[in-house]
Amino acid sequence: MRHWTLVELAQYLDAELVGAADYPVSGISTLVAAQPHQVSFLANMKYASQLADCGAGAVIVHPDQAHHFVGNKLLLANPYLGYAKLSALFAPATSYQGIHPSAVVAQSASLAADVVVGPGVVIGEHVRLDKGVSIGPNCVIGDHCIVGAQTCLAANVTLYHGVILGQRNLIHSGAVLGADGFGFAKDGVDWVKIHQLGGVVTGDDVEIGAGTTIDRGALDDTRIGNGVKLDNQVQIAHNVVLGDYTAIAGCTAIAGSTILGKNCTIAGACGITGHLHLADGVHVTAMSLVTHSIKEPGAYSSGTGLDDNHKWRRNAARFKQLDQMAKRLKQLEQELQKFT
Amino acid sequence: MRHWTLVELAQYLDAELVGAADYPVSGISTLVAAQPHQVSFLANMKYASQLADCGAGAVIVHPDQAHHFVGNKLLLANPYLGYAKLSALFAPATSYQGIHPSAVVAQSASLAADVVVGPGVVIGEHVRLDKGVSIGPNCVIGDHCIVGAQTCLAANVTLYHGVILGQRNLIHSGAVLGADGFGFAKDGVDWVKIHQLGGVVTGDDVEIGAGTTIDRGALDDTRIGNGVKLDNQVQIAHNVVLGDYTAIAGCTAIAGSTILGKNCTIAGACGITGHLHLADGVHVTAMSLVTHSIKEPGAYSSGTGLDDNHKWRRNAARFKQLDQMAKRLKQLEQELQKFT
Amino acid sequence: MRHWTLVELAQYLDAELVGAADYPVSGISTLVAAQPHQVSFLANMKYASQLADCGAGAVIVHPDQAHHFVGNKLLLANPYLGYAKLSALFAPATSYQGIHPSAVVAQSASLAADVVVGPGVVIGEHVRLDKGVSIGPNCVIGDHCIVGAQTCLAANVTLYHGVILGQRNLIHSGAVLGADGFGFAKDGVDWVKIHQLGGVVTGDDVEIGAGTTIDRGALDDTRIGNGVKLDNQVQIAHNVVLGDYTAIAGCTAIAGSTILGKNCTIAGACGITGHLHLADGVHVTAMSLVTHSIKEPGAYSSGTGLDDNHKWRRNAARFKQLDQMAKRLKQLEQELQKFT
Repeated sequence: MRHWTLVELAQYLDAELVGAADYPVSGISTLVAAQPHQVSFLANMKYASQLADCGAGAVIVHPDQAHHFVGNKLLLANPYLGYAKLSALFAPATSYQGIHPSAVVAQSASLAADVVVGPGVVIGEHVRLDKGVSIGPNCVIGDHCIVGAQTCLAANVTLYHGVILGQRNLIHSGAVLGADGFGFAKDGVDWVKIHQLGGVVTGDDVEIGAGTTIDRGALDDTRIGNGVKLDNQVQIAHNVVLGDYTAIAGCTAIAGSTILGKNCTIAGACGITGHLHLADGVHVTAMSLVTHSIKEPGAYSSGTGLDDNHKWRRNAARFKQLDQMAKRLKQLEQELQKFT
Repeated sequence: MRHWTLVELAQYLDAELVGAADYPVSGISTLVAAQPHQVSFLANMKYASQLADCGAGAVIVHPDQAHHFVGNKLLLANPYLGYAKLSALFAPATSYQGIHPSAVVAQSASLAADVVVGPGVVIGEHVRLDKGVSIGPNCVIGDHCIVGAQTCLAANVTLYHGVILGQRNLIHSGAVLGADGFGFAKDGVDWVKIHQLGGVVTGDDVEIGAGTTIDRGALDDTRIGNGVKLDNQVQIAHNVVLGDYTAIAGCTAIAGSTILGKNCTIAGACGITGHLHLADGVHVTAMSLVTHSIKEPGAYSSGTGLDDNHKWRRNAARFKQLDQMAKRLKQLEQELQKFT
Repeated sequence: MRHWTLVELAQYLDAELVGAADYPVSGISTLVAAQPHQVSFLANMKYASQLADCGAGAVIVHPDQAHHFVGNKLLLANPYLGYAKLSALFAPATSYQGIHPSAVVAQSASLAADVVVGPGVVIGEHVRLDKGVSIGPNCVIGDHCIVGAQTCLAANVTLYHGVILGQRNLIHSGAVLGADGFGFAKDGVDWVKIHQLGGVVTGDDVEIGAGTTIDRGALDDTRIGNGVKLDNQVQIAHNVVLGDYTAIAGCTAIAGSTILGKNCTIAGACGITGHLHLADGVHVTAMSLVTHSIKEPGAYSSGTGLDDNHKWRRNAARFKQLDQMAKRLKQLEQELQKFT
């Protein structure tokens, strides 16, 4: 287990150290659970009272809260960001090195010298893996894919042919990039497949969650901007464009040809219908359905609140009478006006 | 890159060619992006103005719109259908041939002579793969499965034992067919598993999207009709029956034993509860919840529209008072009647 | 095909046999479809009339309903539970035995003598597989995982490093356990990854559906209680805790750090937002969104009922006026009071 001294961590975080410079730590934990060999952090003021009993070897804390903790401190204006940066030090490395002999790599594929390819991986014709790429066990990479430097695919990821990934992407297990978009033309009752001839292109610093699917474009590409973060089981249909730094939580589905701006946050289990355009800085709350374009930044919602099932049943029944209720209300107002 | 002359395309599409018969093209593109070596098409009248500046080598267009374009034309009554048919010519073929030596094929499996089995595939006992079947890398096919002629499994598809696929199916990566339906009997607080003894049977010309799951039946089979199209991350529970040519968009979930008619379209992110029966020609809009059977064809919806979060909060709060509001409205009407 | 005599089944089920003790059966079926070599059962009184024409070799039935059937009977107080127990006898066994030579097993892994490891499986460093464990084809098991006795992974399951599974778990294909939780700290417009250092720990007798994802904790573990049953495509975010015997239907998503009590049932396509606490015995109906903690057991719901699309449009438009309608109603009541 690797150790760091607090002075090393202070330099890494650009934090002010108050305490023992050579004190060694080897992990991170919450304020409640931290042990003397671990660092902790105070990111939310409502937990400030936990500092008094905190057993951490050091705490990352805002200077204004430093007086709550008597032990070693790393002072930072944004302790949560400090925690995020620190977490990188303690992430375990993969145990695979080099190209595993059970991997099937096409002769025409071009792999940088330091690439890691796990057991059971299948790499198609004319694939290019740049420096520092790591491909987890049993991944399948279709013909003509390009994987940018330092990008990491966890186990069991599938890239169809011609998918282009930027640098420093992290793609989680079960993700499928480049499957056919859902396109058919009606021919009587029958559906005639529209073969999907576009691709999928991701920017740099993209993270894609487990089981997330991003379809290839019909003619143009489906495009994922720089710094986009997608949670698990997100569905991105063909020709969608996601602006830089937009983040989308689990189980949200975005239909074809919709364009999201930059710096949007879409909560979990949302739906966004096709051919829409959402401005930069749009925030959608959980399980909302977006059916029209949004021109102004801001927060948007749909749905009803949770209620006791019996009360909800009565109210939901009235929802079906709502237009009639509105008309009766209008009529009452008009009748009452006769008296006044 | 394969080329086609316009007269070849006109014959393939059964279209009327207006222009240079031996003009060569090698791709398709949108009206805006098309180059001289590409064909484009006008499927939606709102884009007709793009024909004037379109750089395509030829355009598929309805005869009534032909005058908008001065170049080569392929005249068709349904240009969108023409585009769909044309797209098949430009789809790339897989680079795998034959049975890859790294595939593990049971001795008792029966494979047609021209079957393609990719690297890392595992094929169980007594499996039958018919003519022209293609199995992508790292697929797993359980014992006693039957895969009909010309059916294609992309990489990383899983078929449990006894799954029967029709002809010309296309199953995308990450799809799982034949996992256990979600069935348990309560024994006090404990759940006793109901082993799922039925199968999954698909018709011909079925397409199943990436990450879609279709559970095996409890006793009878889960059945997917001819020409059914399922998008990504659809969930089909045990004993569901989908009628011919029904199409279901991404992330929709259908609970156990529900039967959908023919020619239904279910939009994305819908839920359909169990033991229902939906008629032929039912259309459900995005993120609707269906909780009762539907006897009449037509369009159905649930939910509320999207709104600014602040306005939505106020309205959603009132939803919980809706039954009270209805009663107060009724009382007002009665009181006012006393005056009239 | 294995046969059982009715007296064997009566002993196995602890049922009272009325009929031929040595009558042989080899399968289960529904009342409508059962053949003489099969057992059937009456679990729902509305199907009692089907007993008259039932062709089953024997029927599991409540003593009060026994008079409806003239053939062999197995009398039980809970026929549905009897069916569940009986179903286990007829489930087919996997055809793999031992450790397949194509599996890649790290030297430091520790496998019990009777473990089954299918073709293409990859097992990381320091993994421990206990007695009776079965790992399906092409699964990937990360470093330092522990898999409890009799636990079964179907094909194409992914466990990231350090996942700990209890005894008698059943994990279906496409499931991903231990992927990174969705955690980032904002640094200007950029997102800085919070490396997820916790794990995933499941209790005993857990079943996890196809395509379901359970993320590892940020610092602590994500924990799944004993006897928990998760359907397909469920999303469990980091640090979620699921109480014992809680069951969650397909496509439901639970956001980070939320705690569910014991014996809860969450229907399909629900969303539960983060940092909530749900009591024991909470039941949530399909496609509901839970946005606040629930202290009392009971049934909860949100959303609106399904309606004809035209009627729904009018009512949904009125939903956006609901707060105004409530205010107008209040004003009418006040004005009317002047007259009374």
